[in-house]
Amino acid sequence: MTVSSASQDATFHASGVITLTTDIGHKGPFVAMMKGVMLRRFSAAKIVDLTHETSPHFPAEAGFWLERSYRYFPEGTVHLAVVDPSVGTGREILVVLCDGHCFVAPDNGLIGSIAERERASVHRLDLDEVPGIDRAAVSATFHGRDVFAPLGAELAAGRVKPSSLGPTVDAVVPSWIEEPTVTKARVSGIVVTHDNFGNLITNIDAALLEPFKNPVVVAGGLTFPVRRTYGEVSPGDYMALINSFGVVELARAEQSAMEGLGLSRGAPVRIQEGSAHA
Amino acid sequence: MTVSSASQDATFHASGVITLTTDIGHKGPFVAMMKGVMLRRFSAAKIVDLTHETSPHFPAEAGFWLERSYRYFPEGTVHLAVVDPSVGTGREILVVLCDGHCFVAPDNGLIGSIAERERASVHRLDLDEVPGIDRAAVSATFHGRDVFAPLGAELAAGRVKPSSLGPTVDAVVPSWIEEPTVTKARVSGIVVTHDNFGNLITNIDAALLEPFKNPVVVAGGLTFPVRRTYGEVSPGDYMALINSFGVVELARAEQSAMEGLGLSRGAPVRIQEGSAHA
Amino acid sequence: MTVSSASQDATFHASGVITLTTDIGHKGPFVAMMKGVMLRRFSAAKIVDLTHETSPHFPAEAGFWLERSYRYFPEGTVHLAVVDPSVGTGREILVVLCDGHCFVAPDNGLIGSIAERERASVHRLDLDEVPGIDRAAVSATFHGRDVFAPLGAELAAGRVKPSSLGPTVDAVVPSWIEEPTVTKARVSGIVVTHDNFGNLITNIDAALLEPFKNPVVVAGGLTFPVRRTYGEVSPGDYMALINSFGVVELARAEQSAMEGLGLSRGAPVRIQEGSAHA
Repeated sequence: MTVSSASQDATFHASGVITLTTDIGHKGPFVAMMKGVMLRRFSAAKIVDLTHETSPHFPAEAGFWLERSYRYFPEGTVHLAVVDPSVGTGREILVVLCDGHCFVAPDNGLIGSIAERERASVHRLDLDEVPGIDRAAVSATFHGRDVFAPLGAELAAGRVKPSSLGPTVDAVVPSWIEEPTVTKARVSGIVVTHDNFGNLITNIDAALLEPFKNPVVVAGGLTFPVRRTYGEVSPGDYMALINSFGVVELARAEQSAMEGLGLSRGAPVRIQEGSAHA
Repeated sequence: MTVSSASQDATFHASGVITLTTDIGHKGPFVAMMKGVMLRRFSAAKIVDLTHETSPHFPAEAGFWLERSYRYFPEGTVHLAVVDPSVGTGREILVVLCDGHCFVAPDNGLIGSIAERERASVHRLDLDEVPGIDRAAVSATFHGRDVFAPLGAELAAGRVKPSSLGPTVDAVVPSWIEEPTVTKARVSGIVVTHDNFGNLITNIDAALLEPFKNPVVVAGGLTFPVRRTYGEVSPGDYMALINSFGVVELARAEQSAMEGLGLSRGAPVRIQEGSAHA
Repeated sequence: MTVSSASQDATFHASGVITLTTDIGHKGPFVAMMKGVMLRRFSAAKIVDLTHETSPHFPAEAGFWLERSYRYFPEGTVHLAVVDPSVGTGREILVVLCDGHCFVAPDNGLIGSIAERERASVHRLDLDEVPGIDRAAVSATFHGRDVFAPLGAELAAGRVKPSSLGPTVDAVVPSWIEEPTVTKARVSGIVVTHDNFGNLITNIDAALLEPFKNPVVVAGGLTFPVRRTYGEVSPGDYMALINSFGVVELARAEQSAMEGLGLSRGAPVRIQEGSAHA
């Protein structure tokens, strides 16, 4: 966070795109109300659902998805992330600028991995700086609708500057997902989440495999070869690969590795040198 | 329904926004076909999914979600609601104007709570008034695509006046959800539905708690204190609160009250005076 | 495929609309990344989710949904379909023009039923023809994001001609769903999929019932009358009907035929003459 917020602001040119990442799911009109509020303020907003099916009450997963995907959106995108079990209590809301993107999230670990980067600038939201917010009408339980949505619309419309929204802060709640432990002989990480196919997605970045000549992945007492894509093994076979996010993933061709292995969030995953003839 | 439809029309200025509320879910292209039909007629339509996961064949839940959320959308929004177990039979379709919003729904109780308001004006759709409808091409089973979508597009484009779509009607099928019973000592309502977190949402409006000094909520044989937000109790603890819709909700911090209590739609919920020291 | 690709190109006028059909589901940011990539290249794109809940790894279902729904979208729509278990292997990608619509899908049977039509023109994608594609940055596991999305944006923006994207091909992988077997006495088809209500949807087109005076549908050892719409029987009763796609469907009024009958994908369904007094 050594880059001054002024220079970061200079790089934020609102694109009109807003992404939404929540644990609200698709039942009920909750996400839709956020969109309604945004369209009331900024009728040209282009709103994209990043996902509403992150694990409830687990901010770190939302942050992981966002951290690994925001670069695919236009620069100048506003990313609203609302996994917020402490809504209505004293928790702060952060406005983070990084790489020309703007992120708004509760200060609960969700956005820690982006906010702690050297090049990010981080502001603590002062509600009084959001134009036209009626503080008395802010509910105690749904800041997504009553705070994030109006703020997101103003940011996406280019009508407020991120750096004007509150004081700069240096310390934020860190992500709940620790970085992998790296020794010469092994990398020790965990399963962060899974996708619709039951592929198990870890926190181990591809770069961590580079020191190994013939890396293998160990999880659940089994050893998996590293392949390039799912179709390289037969349906039903297990494998590991570097997925499209650039992290290690455990997969089972055309089936669910999660169900087959009985592993889920938090399960330890290890990288080590395989035998020469693996 | 004492306000003349003429004066209501005067307040409907199409915003171009259309919301969709159905029990169709996300499997198959059904909702997408509705959007395709709308974009064919009105390429600038801004279409928002309110929810497609209301309980199948239970129009009242869709009406509840809509009634409690439409005000967050721009005035001039067209709300299409299609929970329609009697599609293709003799049931009528209603066009309702209220508060500058336009609602289109089958006359099966879905829209009863809005249509019965004094300030609403209600018309019974005459298909011949929908421009360019090919009656022979209207399917017997999917009026969402063949009637609601083309009509919604014309309304959102501002090309038809709601009051021109058919005769005014005074009597509609009432909502299946009865209003709570109110006595001096207690308010008796029910669970209407739940959200993605397993919070149980009732039909008891916040205003009904005002006569009580220290209201408590009784459901499933247990008594719950009324708190302001989820974070005021420890994870796993039960509570009641006034939710962001302005109705009483039973919640369990960071867990599912629905699963924990074994309660669901229709379960009785009572408000009464708590003890002085609760 | 006898129509020359030149004449088909003449009929493709990009509408700016893009539909997405995948088996990716709603967990994680995968579909959203595709949208981000498209908005980066073509900020006016109108992106519609057709469905992301087709059966995983079963391309034929995605093709079935698409084949039966594309006509409801504006002419000039680009339909991206990504059910792609062989991603990153040698499988080809097809660009198909038919009826003024453009389809992009892996050559794995997904798009067979459209590509094999006489009036369709089919090209095999040459990646070098996609403007600005960085082949080195194409992942091995997510061509939806790295190939389909940029290509879809260019097509929807009208900046590339479908016929310029690669050589014409005559032979494609056929759909995995065979056409029904038709004899004078009966039509034998299968259940292709189901919808959110548990209605069982078959591959038997309405036209195949025309030779019968009083057709009945036989499945799971039971015989079902053919009705016009769900509300013609009592809740809980079974029936068959011609659904809004124009194919035979087995339904149970206000309940799930799939659960009630225990039938699912692949189950045989037969049409035959009913008794005169059925």
